[in-house]
Amino acid sequence: MTDPNASIAIFDSGLGGLTVFRALKELLPKENLLYFGDTARIPYGNKRPETILSYCKQAAQFLETHNIKILILACHTACAAALKELRADLNVPVIAILEQAIDQVSLISNQNKIAILGTQATLSTGAFQKQISERLPHAELTTIACPLFVPLVEEGFISHALTRLAIKEYLSPLKENKIDTVLLGCTHYPLLQQLIAQELGSDVTLMDPATACAKKVQEVLAETHLLNEQTSSPLIQFYVSDDPDKFRKIGSLILQEPIASVEIAQL
Amino acid sequence: MTDPNASIAIFDSGLGGLTVFRALKELLPKENLLYFGDTARIPYGNKRPETILSYCKQAAQFLETHNIKILILACHTACAAALKELRADLNVPVIAILEQAIDQVSLISNQNKIAILGTQATLSTGAFQKQISERLPHAELTTIACPLFVPLVEEGFISHALTRLAIKEYLSPLKENKIDTVLLGCTHYPLLQQLIAQELGSDVTLMDPATACAKKVQEVLAETHLLNEQTSSPLIQFYVSDDPDKFRKIGSLILQEPIASVEIAQL
Repeated sequence: MTDPNASIAIFDSGLGGLTVFRALKELLPKENLLYFGDTARIPYGNKRPETILSYCKQAAQFLETHNIKILILACHTACAAALKELRADLNVPVIAILEQAIDQVSLISNQNKIAILGTQATLSTGAFQKQISERLPHAELTTIACPLFVPLVEEGFISHALTRLAIKEYLSPLKENKIDTVLLGCTHYPLLQQLIAQELGSDVTLMDPATACAKKVQEVLAETHLLNEQTSSPLIQFYVSDDPDKFRKIGSLILQEPIASVEIAQL
Repeated sequence: MTDPNASIAIFDSGLGGLTVFRALKELLPKENLLYFGDTARIPYGNKRPETILSYCKQAAQFLETHNIKILILACHTACAAALKELRADLNVPVIAILEQAIDQVSLISNQNKIAILGTQATLSTGAFQKQISERLPHAELTTIACPLFVPLVEEGFISHALTRLAIKEYLSPLKENKIDTVLLGCTHYPLLQQLIAQELGSDVTLMDPATACAKKVQEVLAETHLLNEQTSSPLIQFYVSDDPDKFRKIGSLILQEPIASVEIAQL
């Protein structure tokens, strides 16, 4: 693939990848972006690895039928279950948000008590725990699965009382343990960042790997001379596997700008 | 199909159909039961009708490869989206929980203010509203979609503080409107019956169509001389499309008896 005008593809199980979309749009405003959210089969986080892998392969096949130059696996659960296979299968570089998250946390070596929030599927692979422990052997790691955060975000309950209570419930162990850093290890969770910060207080650093992910994309595209320098308006495409209207409605709220059109992907 | 030893098949998107399973086991303890929960693709309630229809057709094809004599569509959303097609496609009678729910509510003509709780997909078809209004033209109907009830039940949060708050939020309009009857129009909702009753108080009648559904099955099997009179232990089979361990664990809690084994259905 040697076409700078090809799109950057972003794949997530639903709306969560919009945090990465937003970071990319800010850092690389000239790039064409193609987003796919597998809204028919969300949530991924409580499914078996084999099932998630088969969904990711279908998504990658769909994205490959478009003119893309790089793929961002913007779903940590998908990274944990399918990264190796997708890298082997695809002809374009694959940037994994999970790797960016691990890099980002590992750079802050002055922190000692780190909590990783993620889905059941991501945490049960141990990918976060193993790789962070290797790089920060003295850090104390706590992991918390928050299975209701994704359904809450997908319903658009970004600042709802129910979400506030769910955060209080899931994060209560962190308040007792005096955690200093919290990794938002699921792409949906940064959308609840404000409520999480209110619950945990200002002494706790919340880490959202979306920006790191966008920087990595910039770096890879620069190295391969594939940065888009077009002067015309970039092409922005959204695809989902189900309910484009709901995605448009809640996605526009999340991005705080209107999403013009969302198409159904035939997987 | 003329084999009384064939199984009664129960199909739901996940764990909710266990309310129907329980009612059947109580009323017809000699029957062989085959349960399928489409846990890979739950929740159905916020998906498009076309998507739900294609999932139901796959489920029916899977169930037809087994020796079954009747199918219970134990998911209201599936009934609203796929009942007509499944009745046309299948060689066995199809009992729809949605129809049983409508029958049950329509029989209580002394009630006037009826609330129907269901998923977004079920309510948006208008099936409940239209058919109940036809039979009870003087009743005032209120509908409330409760999109988080299914994820809460599937996480096993049957009596969790979070579930209590979700119930409070969704049902607050009912307290103001002095509703007398509430139809639990999603097979998962009766699992929250106790908390819902606590929220709404004892003056409100909660209707769970699971028992009506079991009675209808008994009636149809009796008419067609297909009731099972075996003296050996009945065959009980559970299939899911994903995560059998989780289904077994939470399902056993719901049934208050151990589920011995759950297999993966290859759809």
